[in-house]
Amino acid sequence: MSTALHFVPGHEPPDRPRDGALLFLARGMDVLIQEHEGAPSLPTGAAFPELAAGAHYLGALDGQDCYAALLPEDFTPPEGFTKVLARSLYKRVDEARFAVVGRAISIVEWDLTHRFCGRCGTPTQLVPGERARRCPVDHTPFYPRIAPAIIVLVTRGDTMLLGRNATFPEPMFSTLAGFVDPGETLEECVAREVKEEVGIDVKNIRYFGSQPWPYGRSLMVGFTAEYAGGDIVVDPKEIAEAHFFSPDNLPRIPPRLSIARQLIDAFCERVKGPAQSS
Amino acid sequence: MSTALHFVPGHEPPDRPRDGALLFLARGMDVLIQEHEGAPSLPTGAAFPELAAGAHYLGALDGQDCYAALLPEDFTPPEGFTKVLARSLYKRVDEARFAVVGRAISIVEWDLTHRFCGRCGTPTQLVPGERARRCPVDHTPFYPRIAPAIIVLVTRGDTMLLGRNATFPEPMFSTLAGFVDPGETLEECVAREVKEEVGIDVKNIRYFGSQPWPYGRSLMVGFTAEYAGGDIVVDPKEIAEAHFFSPDNLPRIPPRLSIARQLIDAFCERVKGPAQSS
Repeated sequence: MSTALHFVPGHEPPDRPRDGALLFLARGMDVLIQEHEGAPSLPTGAAFPELAAGAHYLGALDGQDCYAALLPEDFTPPEGFTKVLARSLYKRVDEARFAVVGRAISIVEWDLTHRFCGRCGTPTQLVPGERARRCPVDHTPFYPRIAPAIIVLVTRGDTMLLGRNATFPEPMFSTLAGFVDPGETLEECVAREVKEEVGIDVKNIRYFGSQPWPYGRSLMVGFTAEYAGGDIVVDPKEIAEAHFFSPDNLPRIPPRLSIARQLIDAFCERVKGPAQSS
Repeated sequence: MSTALHFVPGHEPPDRPRDGALLFLARGMDVLIQEHEGAPSLPTGAAFPELAAGAHYLGALDGQDCYAALLPEDFTPPEGFTKVLARSLYKRVDEARFAVVGRAISIVEWDLTHRFCGRCGTPTQLVPGERARRCPVDHTPFYPRIAPAIIVLVTRGDTMLLGRNATFPEPMFSTLAGFVDPGETLEECVAREVKEEVGIDVKNIRYFGSQPWPYGRSLMVGFTAEYAGGDIVVDPKEIAEAHFFSPDNLPRIPPRLSIARQLIDAFCERVKGPAQSS
C-alpha cells in the first residue's frame, strides 16, 4: 500500500522560487487541475502566484517542490483549469501525485479549521518551521488532525461478514469500520465496533495493513478477525443489513482503491486461490 | 495489551442519578483521588454534586457509571482528596480504572480545547447523544482528538537500536517514535521516522500491537523492523545518541507500562529465551 514512492516530505527550503513548484489548490474534497487533451496535471506556482505565495510546503516530488493552498470560495477557474473531486483523479494521475493530493487536502483543511483557538477563541498564528498553528494568548498548539479508525473483515470458516451501511448512497456491502475512541487499543476498538454494529463477538484479531483515507483526514487500520459467538443483530443507525457471504456469491463491494476491498480480495484469494480471485 | 476488561463504553443512560457514579475529575495530566489509608480511590458524584452535574458520561465499570469533568483551575481539594499526576496511579488502582483515567483526561481536554470554533471563533455547543461539539454558525463538528503515532524497534541480528531522546529529562534509551503525517500509511511513517531520526533504512516492517498513550491523547502503534542499510546519523533536534544494543548489555530503558518496553522485552525474549528475559 505504499503510494508515494518518489515523494519526500520535508521542511520548507528557504527562499526557493515557487514558480516552477507544483501547486495543490484544494477546498473540501475538491482540487484544481489543468486539463491537457484529457490528461489532468497539477498547476505550477507560475499560474497562480498570489495563491502560491501563501501556500504550505508539502515536500518534493521527484525533486519538484509541492505546495498546498486553499482554493478561495469564490474562485472561478481560468480557461483550461477545472475544479474536480480529488477522488476522481485516481488512476488519472500517478500514485505519488494522487497521494500528495490527499496530503494537500488534509493540510488545507487543518489550516482552515484552526484559524481560531478552540480554547479561548483568539485568532491563531502559524508557527514558523512547524506544521502547527498556535494561540498567541494561551499558547495552545493545533496540529493537522488524523482520526485513526479501524476497518475489519470478520470471517467464519470460508465466509466473510459484510454489512450494508445505512448511510451509503448506493446498495453496497463492505467491511465494518469505526473511529478509535480515546483510551482504547486498536484491538479493543475492533471488538467494540463489531459488537456495537452487528452484535457478535470476535477472536484472533490480526493486523492487515493501513491506508490514509479519505485523503489523509482518517487513517484506516485494517484487521481480520474470526467469528467467536453471537447472532447478528445490526445497529440500525449504522448498518441496514449484514450477512456472511461466500467468495462465490459476493454482493456489490467497494472499488479496488479501498483497503476494504483489499481485505475482501485477500480473503477470497486465501479461500479460492489466487487465480480465481476477482 | 487489553486494559479495560470490565469497562463498557457507552452512551449516557437517561436520568440516572450521579451520586453513586465514579467521578473522574481531571485537568491536564492531573486527576483527583481520595486517599484511604494509602490506597487511592476515585470519588463518587456525591462528593462533588456540582461538578458531577456537568460531567461527560464515559461508560460503566463493572456496572458502575463513570463520568469525567474538568477540575476547575482554582480548585482546592477538600480534606482527604488529593490532585495527583494520573501516571502515578499505575499499579495503585486496577488496570480498568487506570485505563478509564486515560479516557477521562482525553475527554476533558477535548471539551476544554474545543469551546470555540477553530474555523470562525464562535462558541461551540455540545451535540446531544454524541461525543462532539459543534459550531452553531458553520456547523463544523469537533470530536475528541487522537494523534496516531508509530513506535518501532529496529533490529540488526541479535541487537536492537535504541536512542536517547534529546528532550528526555533523564538519560534513558528507548525505541524510535513519531507522529503519523497526513496522507501516509503507518508503514511509510515507520520508514520515514527511522530515516529522519537516525538516517538508516529499514525492511520487513511488522505490526506488534497498539497502546493508547499518554492517556488517550495519542495512539501508539508498535512495529518491529529490520536494519536494511546506512550509517547511524542522528537528527540532533530529536535524538542525542543512538546505538545497537545487545540484550545482555542494555542501557536504562522505559518502565514496563510502556509499549516501548514491551517491544524491547519481546525481542530480548526472542533472542535469549523467555527464562532469562529481565
